[in-house]
Amino acid sequence: MHVQEMIRTHPQPPVVDRDALARCIDACFDCAQSCVACAGACLGEAEHVQRLARCIRLDQDCAEICEVTGNILSRGFQPDPDVIARQLAACIVVCERCAQECNRHASEHEHCRVCAVACRQCLEACQIVAGQLDGHRIAAATH
Amino acid sequence: MHVQEMIRTHPQPPVVDRDALARCIDACFDCAQSCVACAGACLGEAEHVQRLARCIRLDQDCAEICEVTGNILSRGFQPDPDVIARQLAACIVVCERCAQECNRHASEHEHCRVCAVACRQCLEACQIVAGQLDGHRIAAATH
Amino acid sequence: MHVQEMIRTHPQPPVVDRDALARCIDACFDCAQSCVACAGACLGEAEHVQRLARCIRLDQDCAEICEVTGNILSRGFQPDPDVIARQLAACIVVCERCAQECNRHASEHEHCRVCAVACRQCLEACQIVAGQLDGHRIAAATH
Amino acid sequence: MHVQEMIRTHPQPPVVDRDALARCIDACFDCAQSCVACAGACLGEAEHVQRLARCIRLDQDCAEICEVTGNILSRGFQPDPDVIARQLAACIVVCERCAQECNRHASEHEHCRVCAVACRQCLEACQIVAGQLDGHRIAAATH
Repeated sequence: MHVQEMIRTHPQPPVVDRDALARCIDACFDCAQSCVACAGACLGEAEHVQRLARCIRLDQDCAEICEVTGNILSRGFQPDPDVIARQLAACIVVCERCAQECNRHASEHEHCRVCAVACRQCLEACQIVAGQLDGHRIAAATH
Repeated sequence: MHVQEMIRTHPQPPVVDRDALARCIDACFDCAQSCVACAGACLGEAEHVQRLARCIRLDQDCAEICEVTGNILSRGFQPDPDVIARQLAACIVVCERCAQECNRHASEHEHCRVCAVACRQCLEACQIVAGQLDGHRIAAATH
Repeated sequence: MHVQEMIRTHPQPPVVDRDALARCIDACFDCAQSCVACAGACLGEAEHVQRLARCIRLDQDCAEICEVTGNILSRGFQPDPDVIARQLAACIVVCERCAQECNRHASEHEHCRVCAVACRQCLEACQIVAGQLDGHRIAAATH
Repeated sequence: MHVQEMIRTHPQPPVVDRDALARCIDACFDCAQSCVACAGACLGEAEHVQRLARCIRLDQDCAEICEVTGNILSRGFQPDPDVIARQLAACIVVCERCAQECNRHASEHEHCRVCAVACRQCLEACQIVAGQLDGHRIAAATH
């Protein structure tokens, strides 16, 4: 991935830590890919598909929210802190729900186990960026 | 648009009012399309492009968030109320910011004026669904 | 939808007929929404879900391809005719396959019947724009 | 990225080589991220933005087409070879055009130089998968 190089060559510096931002963008796209793949794999589980219907639904929601969150964090130019904070909040909750649902099927379906790991990593990476952004917004408000 | 027919033929009833849901889904896709078109039109404004850079950025963020919000509301099957509430919150704030920015250029660029209207309509449609969803979540929590 | 107003207010005229372009953009977003809704409705069809697995897969592919095609047609600014022609070709084939698969379930599941109509309309609208674009490319190549 | 693990744990084997598929999916998401970041960086280039307008447009088209291509390749379940072939064809041409345009600005703007590399890698990875898929389709047609 060229994420770090793209952050380094952006004409404006990011408002959060470069490494945390790169990790979060990577984690968003990794989680999006895992969720799309997990939904596809669930569709291939023959007589188990019905039991995996909620997993497929959350996978798809999570994939789309992660892709958009990754895109918004990638733009860099004049980011709106409120938009980013709320999109991160949506991403954190959908990653949590998708990880929970995938974990319920992890012992039977290994793709669910792997997807739950990707969701958990994305959730944590988003929480770190959201925390730094919060600090930045409080500092901006008190100056 | 076949939005209303798709809601009517879904095997489960929605947790919010059918008309409010249909209007919100329509407004999300309409706003997404207007924002993508406004960003493209801004790129064609020759020597004004630099002044429109923030508008292009917000247009693109708004388009992507609206598309995802419209998709999540369209699925219907076992919706997670917390995911939907947070995604609606992100959609409401990005529509507000994009409408504000577009309005700043509305007298000079008619595409910004039209786009601001689409953003404002989407914001209002999302607020109605978010309000109904809140009532539903409070009712669910007290039973 | 504000599609027509956005086309009218764009600083550059489109290379294809304005009405055909507006109809195609409308049809792309309508089809995308119908496909996402159909996939969600299929997930709610209890013991029929397994039989609908291929429908869910094609619905999701079709939704994403239509959204991107709608976006690319919406930008207007300096469109690359080869990119648009190939994206339209992908859109036409996925709409055809999704309509076929939905039609197989149309008598049992009304959402599949409605979705097949949306796919068919999108396919036809894309073919018209693709035909006009071809004429434009041939004319450009011979001058 | 968990791409390889997701391919390995899918209940059905892919129709193309696992390593080529994994590399292509990785390259699609890497290119999508680079293009979104390059568009954002271009918007931050002050008085150069006007000159970068075509680059921003192609970046955004390329990002969206790569994301969808990566998603469609990730699903794995009952892939439609014609849909995949046509979507890969669209991806190959948009990566080529975006790389060309980015290369025109590579000496002045390092983000364009990095983005052109990501586009070129995605183009090559897509060509390999498209070639394998073609072989598979010819073999299927002659049996």
